[in-house]
This record gives sequence, C-alpha cells and structure tokens, in this order.
Amino acid sequence: MVFNMTVNSAWRATRTLWLLMLVSLSVSICVCRASSIQEEDSAMENIVTEKKVEESHRQDSADLLIFIMLLTLTILTIWLFKHRRFRFLHETGLAMIYGVLVGVVLRYGIHVPRDISNVTMSCHVNASPATLLLNISGKFYEYTLKEEISANKVNDMQEDNEMLRKVTFDPEVFFNILLPPIIFHAGYSLKRRHFFRNMGSILAYAFLGTVVSCFVIGLLMYGCVLLMKQVGQLGGDFFFTDCLFFGAIVSATDPVTVLAIFNELQVDVDLYALLFGESVLNDAVAVILSSSIVAYQPQGDNTHTFEVMALLKSFGMFLGVFSGSFALGVATGFTKLRDFPLLETALFFLMSWSTFLLAEACGFTGVVAVLFCGITQAHYTFNNLSPDSQDRTKQLFELLNFLAENFIFSYMGLALFTFQNHVFNPMFIVGAFVAVFLGRAANIYPLSLLLNLGRRNKITSNFQHMMMFAGLRGAMTFALSIRDTATYARRMMFTTTLLVVFFTVWICGGGTTQMLSCQHIRVGVDSDQDNPVSITEGSERRSTKQESAWLFRIWYNFDHNYLKPILTHSGPPLTATLPPCCGPLARFLTSTQAYENECQLKDDDSDLILTDGDINLTYGDITVSTDASGSHTSGGPAFAGAATSDDLDRELTYGDHELVMRGTRLVLPMDDSEPPFTDPHHRLRM
Amino acid sequence: MVFNMTVNSAWRATRTLWLLMLVSLSVSICVCRASSIQEEDSAMENIVTEKKVEESHRQDSADLLIFIMLLTLTILTIWLFKHRRFRFLHETGLAMIYGVLVGVVLRYGIHVPRDISNVTMSCHVNASPATLLLNISGKFYEYTLKEEISANKVNDMQEDNEMLRKVTFDPEVFFNILLPPIIFHAGYSLKRRHFFRNMGSILAYAFLGTVVSCFVIGLLMYGCVLLMKQVGQLGGDFFFTDCLFFGAIVSATDPVTVLAIFNELQVDVDLYALLFGESVLNDAVAVILSSSIVAYQPQGDNTHTFEVMALLKSFGMFLGVFSGSFALGVATGFTKLRDFPLLETALFFLMSWSTFLLAEACGFTGVVAVLFCGITQAHYTFNNLSPDSQDRTKQLFELLNFLAENFIFSYMGLALFTFQNHVFNPMFIVGAFVAVFLGRAANIYPLSLLLNLGRRNKITSNFQHMMMFAGLRGAMTFALSIRDTATYARRMMFTTTLLVVFFTVWICGGGTTQMLSCQHIRVGVDSDQDNPVSITEGSERRSTKQESAWLFRIWYNFDHNYLKPILTHSGPPLTATLPPCCGPLARFLTSTQAYENECQLKDDDSDLILTDGDINLTYGDITVSTDASGSHTSGGPAFAGAATSDDLDRELTYGDHELVMRGTRLVLPMDDSEPPFTDPHHRLRM
Repeated sequence: MVFNMTVNSAWRATRTLWLLMLVSLSVSICVCRASSIQEEDSAMENIVTEKKVEESHRQDSADLLIFIMLLTLTILTIWLFKHRRFRFLHETGLAMIYGVLVGVVLRYGIHVPRDISNVTMSCHVNASPATLLLNISGKFYEYTLKEEISANKVNDMQEDNEMLRKVTFDPEVFFNILLPPIIFHAGYSLKRRHFFRNMGSILAYAFLGTVVSCFVIGLLMYGCVLLMKQVGQLGGDFFFTDCLFFGAIVSATDPVTVLAIFNELQVDVDLYALLFGESVLNDAVAVILSSSIVAYQPQGDNTHTFEVMALLKSFGMFLGVFSGSFALGVATGFTKLRDFPLLETALFFLMSWSTFLLAEACGFTGVVAVLFCGITQAHYTFNNLSPDSQDRTKQLFELLNFLAENFIFSYMGLALFTFQNHVFNPMFIVGAFVAVFLGRAANIYPLSLLLNLGRRNKITSNFQHMMMFAGLRGAMTFALSIRDTATYARRMMFTTTLLVVFFTVWICGGGTTQMLSCQHIRVGVDSDQDNPVSITEGSERRSTKQESAWLFRIWYNFDHNYLKPILTHSGPPLTATLPPCCGPLARFLTSTQAYENECQLKDDDSDLILTDGDINLTYGDITVSTDASGSHTSGGPAFAGAATSDDLDRELTYGDHELVMRGTRLVLPMDDSEPPFTDPHHRLRM
Repeated sequence: MVFNMTVNSAWRATRTLWLLMLVSLSVSICVCRASSIQEEDSAMENIVTEKKVEESHRQDSADLLIFIMLLTLTILTIWLFKHRRFRFLHETGLAMIYGVLVGVVLRYGIHVPRDISNVTMSCHVNASPATLLLNISGKFYEYTLKEEISANKVNDMQEDNEMLRKVTFDPEVFFNILLPPIIFHAGYSLKRRHFFRNMGSILAYAFLGTVVSCFVIGLLMYGCVLLMKQVGQLGGDFFFTDCLFFGAIVSATDPVTVLAIFNELQVDVDLYALLFGESVLNDAVAVILSSSIVAYQPQGDNTHTFEVMALLKSFGMFLGVFSGSFALGVATGFTKLRDFPLLETALFFLMSWSTFLLAEACGFTGVVAVLFCGITQAHYTFNNLSPDSQDRTKQLFELLNFLAENFIFSYMGLALFTFQNHVFNPMFIVGAFVAVFLGRAANIYPLSLLLNLGRRNKITSNFQHMMMFAGLRGAMTFALSIRDTATYARRMMFTTTLLVVFFTVWICGGGTTQMLSCQHIRVGVDSDQDNPVSITEGSERRSTKQESAWLFRIWYNFDHNYLKPILTHSGPPLTATLPPCCGPLARFLTSTQAYENECQLKDDDSDLILTDGDINLTYGDITVSTDASGSHTSGGPAFAGAATSDDLDRELTYGDHELVMRGTRLVLPMDDSEPPFTDPHHRLRM
C-alpha cells in the first residue's frame, strides 16, 4: 500500500513536471520565434551592431534552451520507463522521437523567412581571408570566415527558413565537444575481464571486420550508383571515393541500446564483451578510414578512380594517424598523484582533455586519441587514484557521456526535419539498407568462421545472428556524415545515414528482447547458475585460453611486471620482478606504496589472467605458471587448492555484478571491495 | 619512516610531472607558433578554404592547450603547497603567476606578425549584416559578424601580434561559460546555518553597501578624472557614467583566497558567514548595477551628465532585472524526482543550465538567475535528491567551479601581457586604488555602525578591519571589465581593474594569516572550545535572536510549514500545518514520503532556527514558541531539556565540521548522517 502510494505520488509528480516541461518547451520555441521576428523588425532600422550581437546571443540561448528542454523531457520520460521496466525503448531512441516531434513543429509550425539583412557582395579580392574588415560608410566591422558555399546553395539560402537555420549547429561541435566524452567514456569502461579474454576476436571484428564492411558497402553502393546513373535517378556527381566514404561512416556500430538491455538482462558476458569491444574500437577505425579517404580525395580530384597506389597511401596515412593518436593517448594516460580528490579529479579531466587538444593541434584525430587515452587511463591511472576520485571520475564521465549521447540523438531527430538540404533518393536509400545489411553480414559471418577455427570456446551461430542484429548505427555515424554536407553526394549520404540510424535504433534496438528469446540466448547468466558449467567444461576451457591468448599473455606479463610497477602504485615492486643487477634502478622507480601493496597484492587487473594459472593449480594440471602474482605463487599448489573453495564461496556471496564470469571461475578475487576478508599473511604465504 | 618515504616518492613523482608539464607547455607554445607560421606560409598560396578552417581549428586547439597546461601546472603546484601546508599563496594567486609568466613568454618570446590575408574592403551597403555572403571570383563565402571596430583600432590591427590576438578569448566566454558555474556553486554552497543567522547584516552589506561603494568610488574617480583633465593626463573621453560603471565593477568582492584560509584555520563562523554571504550577493548587485548603467548610457549619449530622473530609471531597470532573474531562478529550482542518481544529476544540471539560458533568452542577466537558482536548488531541490545524487551534484559543481575559477585567474595573468590595448595611466591607477580603499571603507564602517545598533552580537572592530581587508576583487570584476574594451575609458578601466585584482589577491590574500593574528581574531574556533561561551552568554544571545530575526522567522515559518512540504519531500506534511478545512487540498499536495518523514523529521534546514526555540525550552525562558517542528513541540519542556544533554554529547562526538556553531548550540541535530541515533518514537513523542 505504501509502495503503491509512493509510486502514485511519484507518477503524479513526474506527470506534473512533464507537463511543465512541455509548456516550457513551447514557451522557448515561442521565445525563439519572437526574437527572430524582433530581429527581423529591428533589421529594418539602422541599429547599432551591439544590439544585433546581443540579439544573436539571445537567439542562441533560446535555441540551446530547446535542446535542454528536449533532454529534460527525455530524462523524465525515461525515468518513468525505467520505473515501469519498459525495455522496448532506450533513452536514445526516445530522445530521437522527441527530436522528431520538435523538428516537425519547427518545420511546419513556424515560418520565419530569411533575414533580409543578409547581403551578398561581389568583391575584387583573389583570396578568401580568415578575417575580414568591412568599411561600411566609415565604420569598420570585423567578420570571420565561416564556410565556403556552393553557388547553387546561395540561391537556396535566400528562401531558407531562418528559424531552421538557427537551430542548426556547426557540425564541428559534434566532433569537438560532444563525441570526445562519449568516446572517452567507452574507452574508460572497457576495463572488463571479458574484454581482454576475447581480445583477439574483438580486434579481428573491429579492425579487419570494419575494413571489410567498409569495402563491401562501398562496392555495393558503387554498383547502386552506377545503376542509378543508368536509370537517370542521380541528380549530381557521385564518385567511387564517395561510396567508400559512405562505407566507412556506416561501418561504425554503436549498439548502446542493445548493450543497455544486455546489461539489464544479464546476457552472456562473452557476447557482451564481443559487441561492446567491437563497437568501441570500430569507431576509431571508422574515423580514421573516413579521414584517410577524404585526405586521399583532393589529390585524385580530377580522376576519382580507384588506384592501388593511392589506396596504399591512404593505408599508410591510416597507420600514421592511428599510431600517432594511440601514442598520444597512451602518453598522457600516465599520471601519478594520490591525494586531494578534487585536485585529482580536475587533473584527470584536464589530462584527458589535453590529449584531445594535443592530438587535434598536431593534426591527428582527437577522438581516436581520446579513446586510447580512456583505455590507458582506466588501465594505469585509475589505479593511482584515491577511491574517492575513482568514484568521482567515473560519475563525471558517466554524466558527460549521458548528456552528450542524448543530445546527439535528439539532435538527430531534429535534423530529420530542420536540416534544409535533404536529398531523399528512394533507390539510394534501399540500396544503402541492403548494402549495410550485407556489409554487416560480410563482417560477422566469415570472420566468425575464421575465428572459430582458432577458438575452442566457439562463437555459436545464435551469437553470430545476435551480433549481426546488434549492428546499430549511432552517434559516430551521424557525426561523420554531418561533418560535410557541401556536395550533392554528401547530402544524399547524410539523409540516408539518418534513416539507417533511425531504423536500426528503433527497430533493432526495440526488438532486442524478442531477438534474444528467438535466438534462445540465455539471459540472467549469473555466477551461481554458471558454476556447474565451469566445473564440467573446466579442462577444455583452460587449454583454450592457453592456445588463443599466448600473445596476450606475454604482453600481460610484461605489463604486469614492468609497466604497472613503473606507472602505478599497484602491482609487485620492481625489485621483485627485475633481475637483481638492476637493483638500484628498481628501487628508484618503485614507489613506497608498491612495497606496502606487496603484502596485499591489491591489483584489480590481476584477475584478467589469473583464472588460467590458478585453475591449473586447483585442478592439478601441469602447465607453465603464468599467474598474475608473478614469482610469488610457485609456492604450494595444495594450499592454493584449499584456498579456492573458500574464495568460491566468498564470490558467490559477494559476487560483483559487473565482473561476473562464465565458464571459468575467479580463484583469487583480489577486489578492494572486500576488506574484511583480506588477510595479508594468508596472501603472503602463497 | 614509511611516511617520510611516501612523501619523498610523492614529491619526486610530482617534480617529474611538473617538469613534464613545463616541457609540454613549451611544446604547445611551439606548436602554436609553428602552426601560426605555417598558416602564414600557406596564406601565400591560393589554398582551399577548408584547409584554412582546419588550420584555424588546429590553432584553437593549441591555444586552448596552453590554458589546460597552465591549469595542470597550477594543480600540481598547489597540490605540493597543500601537502606542505603553505598558506601564503592560494591556487588562484598561483594560477595568476603562471599566467603572467606564460604571458611574458608569449609577448616577448614569440613574435608573429599579423596575418597578411586580413583584408580591408570598402563596400557600399548602408547596413552591417549579421551574415555576409562574399562573392570572390565566382566562389561564395559565408562570413559572420564579429564586432564593430573603432577606426583607430583598425590601424593598430595591422601591427598586431597575431599570436597574442589568437590567445585572446571572446569576452563573452567568461559570462556565458566560465562565470555561471562559479556563481551557481557560490549560491549552492550558501546553505549554512550562519548565513541565515546573519541574513540581515549580509543583505545590508551586499545591497546597501555595494551601492554605497559604487557611488563613492564613482564620485572619487570622477574627481580624479577631472583632475587628470586639468593636468592634461587624459588621452580620451571619460564620462561620469564611465566612473559609475567603474565603481560598479570594482564593487564586486570575491574573497575566495581569504575564505579558503578561514575554512582551513576555522576562523569565527559569523565572520565567515558575513564575508561569504556578502561576496556572493554583491556579485549579483554589481552585475545589475553595471548593466543598468550601461543601458542608461546610450540614451544620455550626447550629454553624459548626471540626471536624477535617469538614475531613478536605471534603478527601476535594476529592480526589474533583479526580480526577473530572481523569479526565474526560483521557479526552475523546484523539481521533484528521487530515483536513479545519474538521471537525477543530469536533470539537476540541465535545470540549472536552463535557468541561465532562459534568463539570457528573455534578456535578463543569466548570472544573477543562476545565483538564485543555486540558492533555491540548495534549499529545496537538494532535499529531494537521493544521497548519492547529493554527493554527485556537489562534486560536479565543485569541480566545475574549481576549473572555471582557475581558468579565469590564469587568463587574467596572461591578459596582463597579451591584451594589446592596455592603457596604463599612473594617475588613474593611484586614484583607483585610493577610491577602492575608501569605497570599501565607506561600505564596511558606517554600515557596521548602523548594524551594531540593531545587533546585540556586535560586529567588533577587529571584525570590521578584517572585512575591510578581505575586500578582494576577482573573477566577476574581471569578467565585467573585459566585456567591453572598445573605448579609451574602458581600456584604462580594464588595465586598472587587472592591477587591483592582482594587488588584492596577492597582497591581501597572502597576508590573511598575518592580518588574522594582527587583529587577534581567534582561529581554530571549534564547537568544543566555543561551548562555555554559549552557556554563560546564553540568555543574552537568545534575546538578540528574537529581536533581530523576527522578520526572518515569519518567513521561515511560512517556508517550513507550507513551501517545503509542497516543494520537497522533507518538512512536516501539509495536513499537519494547514487548517483542517483545507484537508483535501493538503492531502493532494503532500507526498507520501512526507508522511513517512513525519516520524523522523529529517529536515536538515530545521536547525536554522530551531536553536532559539529549543534553547528556551532548555534554559526555561518564557518566550513564544517558534521552533521548527511546528505544532509538535509544545509537548514537554522537561523532556526536551533532558534530551539536550544527550544531543550535546552527541554533537561533540559527531560534530559536523561545516555546521559548527558559535554562541548557541544545536539542540536537535537532525542530521541524516546519524542513523544509529535516530529513534522515531523518541522524536514523535516530542
């Protein structure tokens, strides 16, 4: 009864707020409109520039307000959905719906003709300066260059709806303000054991798969375009590089909707890891592929044909941009500071931002740098933070990610109606949908076949179908396609991309639960239920790990024994891992905290690989000792075996939701979160 | 030994990082330089617009990187200072020093002449359009209006240092991006008991005092300007309104440095409340005064003389802007939502931001709206948040405040050298320092005299001297003065303001501890030490409260009994406070949580006034019952007295650092933080 009343009152409160928001939204739209009209009126008179600038600022505030209201509405509605456990619509899908609604209102409800004060002048200078000083009847005005406008667009502009033009953001906003937090957050939350266990497959899907997808889609679209030319459906130029570019931008998957449902329903963690890892890394690949294609375009401007040399060149560029961005991201990910939480958090934030800026200033891709910065920050810097700062940084980036993501999706909804240069070409759109489908299939199925040759923990066919289905397109695809809408080809691409995003987010995202049950994929995979499997299949799994992850294990050992001690306070002290001759150097590089940690071995990454080594000890297999505690574990297998059942019980009781495993079990759960069970002497004896 | 080693290793790590940062800073300056030069080279050729836009983006990234590096350096250094307990330099002072150093390097180390591609054109249009389409040899370019430039500046521009111009931000950035989080945070942290206890005095200092200070400084400066005109030291126009404007902008105090030291040394809380409250509210007054003066200026453009009617008009405008901003801030401060922390935090952030935007879109002052939004959010919305969200929002705004504040101060340091239109006029500067000193004196001393007539808890002379001394100028003064530097008068003001800020932050801020000991102001005022005073002076204090706070108490009762129950989940249910005839309405408006709360009475604002009512019960004085628990407390004074000693002990043990009181004691510490002591039945019986 009390619960019911609480829900009712909450529902009433939300409904009230919701109505309030709707009213505010209409008010702000009216304000927009009013100030537009006012601007028009005042343009008739000869008013001061300051007034005009102020007016434009007011207009900007009102425009931004529309988006804030949209976000607020989305949050309120999604709160209700979460409360009632509706799963068919994710917050991003909802944001798009609201965006579309407001877009319709702006498009058809309000018409403000283009400002008359917009003047076209012909001038006799042979360069387009970045800054322009205009001498208008004795007064000087400074103008800054915004963009080049194609001649046919100039005519359009006179008929443009001023209102719609106003709510259109500079596309670079997405790349420089909204995408970085999303991408950083993705990299930062990649610190999951299962990601590293499936690293090989994830890298294959993300790198090889995305390139394959890009070319398959590119070729199919080229065929489609040729056909359209034959039929006479093409209203402008469309080169092969444009097709490749389209392939690159729609190859970036973003299954945020699907992953949210996976998380909620506790779907198989390996499947989660594969999807999430692929989606994070293929963003980077897509950005770099597309920018390589763009960079390659101007040189072949006259031919626009496909040349092998040029392709190799763009691959070289790809590798250069990629490694440069990666190096920058990694380099700034290393900081050592462990004190005042506010200072730490601020430093962390600034370091991440400076990675982005540094990469951009050097001409690399900031978004890619930020992704790798996120990964390294999570892997190294995170361990140096105080627990308070760890929470703060997580929450901060979670919030930024949430806001940026929903902003982009609601903008997408809005753009469907407010973008004024849409080119809806049914044939191209149908072709694109087919190509996107086939491209995804060409990524998943052949690669899975190949990977299954090497994996003994096969990617089953229902997993493959699920991955195929979960190839949603989202923020990155949108940001890449809106970046340049100058030519006919790009506009057609933008329109088509928007439709692809809408379709995948609404249909595929909404049908995730149906698809899961249709494919008989187990949900609610908890550590408890999974336990029997691990014991029966234990020995098979073990050898799988040893075969597939040997390269990773070499790297891991190097990382654990040398990189981590140098860069963080966690891990074993260097004095234990380096050969004795390097004693002084080791002592110099090791922080005192690492010595203290030696007793506790509180290394939260050790569980990445520990499973293999320890399960060997538990079940008595004879293998090379590769466990994470380095040289310390060679002691007594019998004792370790005794400890195992304790730890199993412990984990069943204090199971970490995020770190739930399938198949193998964590034998030494070295979590910081269980202080009552940490017995230093016990550990030390091992 | 272990501690020493930890400190040493931390110190080494920081030193390494510090050097790293210095190197990065130089690298980023070089990058800036390199890209500037590159831009210049490439300007020689006839390159594509896109390239130029990209180049400008790289340049912007590099410029921003300089500031990020500066902030990082500041954080690292201040971490060291905090570690070693150096108190003579606050982080803001340090940020200024680093800013000055980098400013010197940029000014004298690197000279990049003005871009040649900057073209002046004479055109035959009679309006300055907001958007300009330029037809340059067949290609169209879109330009946007930036600002009007005075004729004499046009000549300067050709000789400008391109590098310096690049690192100069649009002044509106301060008002629209950097100030709002600072001001919001100030309002949000105003939720202290002592602020409300000294509300009358704070309002007097902030409103009356700032206006007095503004006019005193304005008049003195007008005298100074007249003298300068006589001597021939004045190189341009300087009207009386300019003087008043100067008075308004330097009247905004910002003793962030002093308050940080007060907090650390636990200086008398009343003094803290007076200074903090005044500085928060006088920002709002200064913004509105200055914008009223600016708005009044264009009408009297031809005369620039002082008219009583015009003054009244600007006061009307002042009131309009103020009440509009206030209403907006209050209106959007009311939200009810208590669930998922991420959604809550996001909603909270968006609501605060939308207040700002809404105010700006309506033509009010966003900063003022945000201040009152912060206050109401802290007073009402905060109580509706879940504990997790309370932490999150606090930490979020703390971080934003920290970053924005240090950014502004380091920019100030930089601006001393990179701003290219400084007007150093020694006579004006000396006059300004004298006027600022006298203006502060005219604010503090006469008002204190008047207030002491009403207060029985006198503001002693050493407190007055300390308040006089703590009149630092900071972010708001700077933001107001840089907003418009078009005319000679404004430039001279800007330069002088910058020097005033430097002097007060470095000298007054650095000398705070000396001043405290010189004025014999007690530090380390802990609740324990303060206790005997409260008992001996108890009865006198009590009557003081009743006299001075009667107006406040009426409002408080209204707020507690009606506003809080409607707007938040805390407070007594309306069914208890409204007369019986309003039963159905009361039941409709009260949330179920409020009923549950009735048992616990977990209202963290109740301690604002509870002290008075309860201390009466404790010491047996006969007064009107005004305590916060409304009609529920009239029960048994004897019992309440018995509870008091318990609570006293409790508070001594679990003393909340922030809520430490002086003089009177908290009798019913209804903190959420002490669940083990909350006995619902015990409370209910009272």
